[in-house]
Amino acid sequence: MALIVQKYGGSSVANPERIKNVAARVTKYRSQGDQIVVVVSAMSGVTDNLIKLAKEIMPVPSEREMDMLLATGEQTTIALTAIALHALGVDAISLTGAQAGIVTDGVHTKAKIQNITPKQIHALLNAGHVVIVAGFQGQTAEGQITTLGRGGSDLTAIALAAALHADLCQIYTDVDGVYTADPRIVTDARKLKEISYDEMLELASLGAKVMQSRSVEFAKKFGVVFEVRSSLNDNPGTIVKEETESMEEVVIRGVSLDKNQAKVTLVAVPDQPGVASRVFKALADAVINVDMIVQNVSHGSGSPATDLSFTVDKPELVKASRVIETLKKDIGYREAISDEKIAKLSIVGVGMRSHSGVAAKMFETLATEGINIEMISTSEIKISVVIELAKGEQAMKAVHKAFLGP
Amino acid sequence: MALIVQKYGGSSVANPERIKNVAARVTKYRSQGDQIVVVVSAMSGVTDNLIKLAKEIMPVPSEREMDMLLATGEQTTIALTAIALHALGVDAISLTGAQAGIVTDGVHTKAKIQNITPKQIHALLNAGHVVIVAGFQGQTAEGQITTLGRGGSDLTAIALAAALHADLCQIYTDVDGVYTADPRIVTDARKLKEISYDEMLELASLGAKVMQSRSVEFAKKFGVVFEVRSSLNDNPGTIVKEETESMEEVVIRGVSLDKNQAKVTLVAVPDQPGVASRVFKALADAVINVDMIVQNVSHGSGSPATDLSFTVDKPELVKASRVIETLKKDIGYREAISDEKIAKLSIVGVGMRSHSGVAAKMFETLATEGINIEMISTSEIKISVVIELAKGEQAMKAVHKAFLGP
Repeated sequence: MALIVQKYGGSSVANPERIKNVAARVTKYRSQGDQIVVVVSAMSGVTDNLIKLAKEIMPVPSEREMDMLLATGEQTTIALTAIALHALGVDAISLTGAQAGIVTDGVHTKAKIQNITPKQIHALLNAGHVVIVAGFQGQTAEGQITTLGRGGSDLTAIALAAALHADLCQIYTDVDGVYTADPRIVTDARKLKEISYDEMLELASLGAKVMQSRSVEFAKKFGVVFEVRSSLNDNPGTIVKEETESMEEVVIRGVSLDKNQAKVTLVAVPDQPGVASRVFKALADAVINVDMIVQNVSHGSGSPATDLSFTVDKPELVKASRVIETLKKDIGYREAISDEKIAKLSIVGVGMRSHSGVAAKMFETLATEGINIEMISTSEIKISVVIELAKGEQAMKAVHKAFLGP
Repeated sequence: MALIVQKYGGSSVANPERIKNVAARVTKYRSQGDQIVVVVSAMSGVTDNLIKLAKEIMPVPSEREMDMLLATGEQTTIALTAIALHALGVDAISLTGAQAGIVTDGVHTKAKIQNITPKQIHALLNAGHVVIVAGFQGQTAEGQITTLGRGGSDLTAIALAAALHADLCQIYTDVDGVYTADPRIVTDARKLKEISYDEMLELASLGAKVMQSRSVEFAKKFGVVFEVRSSLNDNPGTIVKEETESMEEVVIRGVSLDKNQAKVTLVAVPDQPGVASRVFKALADAVINVDMIVQNVSHGSGSPATDLSFTVDKPELVKASRVIETLKKDIGYREAISDEKIAKLSIVGVGMRSHSGVAAKMFETLATEGINIEMISTSEIKISVVIELAKGEQAMKAVHKAFLGP
């Protein structure tokens, strides 16, 4: 008998028919004698509707009240899911985040889980119930309702799997698992049997929209092995777990392309201490998320100056440019150039640590395709380059073929 | 500075625009320096939609899960109402039934309030907040979410008014107050300035759909004076309170007509002990609500027998007839006659206790109009008659004129 935590996202519970499908899948596992904890999101569309209602009343509503409001979305789904299990003759009981013992800090709309008291869930499981827990929500020690922010339901599932010492944690979604590249672009992309936390983290930050980084980080921290798989079929998914030696035999795990970034370059920034910190503090103060940052000391004539480039999410380019403009006098750069027509191509794999020449091979592949590299950024297990947007897919296919091709 | 509890029903918070109106009204009171507790229902339609969703999954869903599901309706409204007050610059905070300290028994979908711990609400009021409480819901001592059943939000408001020792409890609805008769039928019906709990109770059970009896009973038990008034205008409403001497000067308070009843008569029921109890136990077991019951000992020839008549809600007539049919052999009545074409006309007033001849005057008025009386039932402060449906409105107008006419 295993203890399994299953998480179903908004599209898997979008309507009564799909909720019945979820119940049927849960029932299948239950009938094998396993103990099941089900974590569900709000039915897709529900959260957006609630946000719309609130914004009709006030453009920037209170975060505490937004948590009160949005928590109803998951509460609706847990009740309906429990009812769907009852309809199949399965004992099931729903719990809000608070009832499930999920205690968070008090940072409304993006609360962090502080601890989970799994006593109640264990008791209900031992009494023969399937336990349905509302994802995305918790309660402070003082009894305030909180929500966990984007990707919160995944986090609930992984945190529960850790607290309950679950044997298995399954994240059901509308994709089959993690692929070597987006199969809609790269036709010979393959589904991965397994991937390490670190690789998954790099992919998560690279536009492979399967999961938010924070859930993967949490899983890594607590050693929760989980499987990403589809709620639409019975195919095995991708297992995400601690790196093993055999993983290093594969040079790279996947290729990803992010077309949602824009580049800003400050030309001829005085090469003085504190300049970069002023730029990125100002951007952080404006709540603009910066991804890649590249700076090269320039050795031109006259006073030492450098070019500083960074990328932001495309929708935030205008806001970022405005922030940069306000710094012009203070910092004294020559000009700021922004470019929306870029793509970020990345390769990820723990194997690149022990295989030399990975970067060289990537750059050579791009050169052969006649694609110019505008920025380069590397981590221990990732290489990202910024290239022209129009050549993004061509580059992705070529790089995938070079490293992962059949 | 007064402490005021205001309750707004589903139609008063049906959409963001109406919620803003509620907030504007609350703000007006708040700006006079009063402390305000607002109790709200689910936005109209929301509860029905949730019930529909659940029934699509299972025709008779679990009551515990229905409470989990339906409690989201009021939780949505409290958050939106708090946001609407924030938009007007008013400090406001929302509380679920559980957070407001409303502890109930564990009878899901029709829980009874056991006690209210008003500490939290007092603290928030004293800190300058308007406190918005979800109506219709509570929590058991073990932390299960419960709902209070029909009219539950009124009950929440009145129970909170009692627990908080409020100075005023206002029940906002879509009618102006309590009238001497339905103004859509009786054009010279007048709004009552005040009415006693007992009169209100009789009216509540008589088709004056302002409030459920339960809330009035609760108010009576705890001496909560409340006002029924409209959320659409600023007219004073009707004050419901303990009977005063001056109330008895008015012979009758109001006339009501209930067209939603049907009559069943068992002809020639053996006049033996236990027959009536078997009939009404069988109906109660089938969850059929019986209103009037009239029995007369008959003194015909042969074995002693009697006619037994009762009324039920019209939609339950078929079900009731079926129950009665199953008893035929056992009880041995001659035949059962059902009649949907009836109306129940009632007059209510504490004054009738000290004024003789009220019944006689009512019957005489009906006789003058040529209206036959089929059943009569009286209480200390009420006289109800069953008459032909087609003559119901004519009878109501005549009786209203006789007792309350200008």
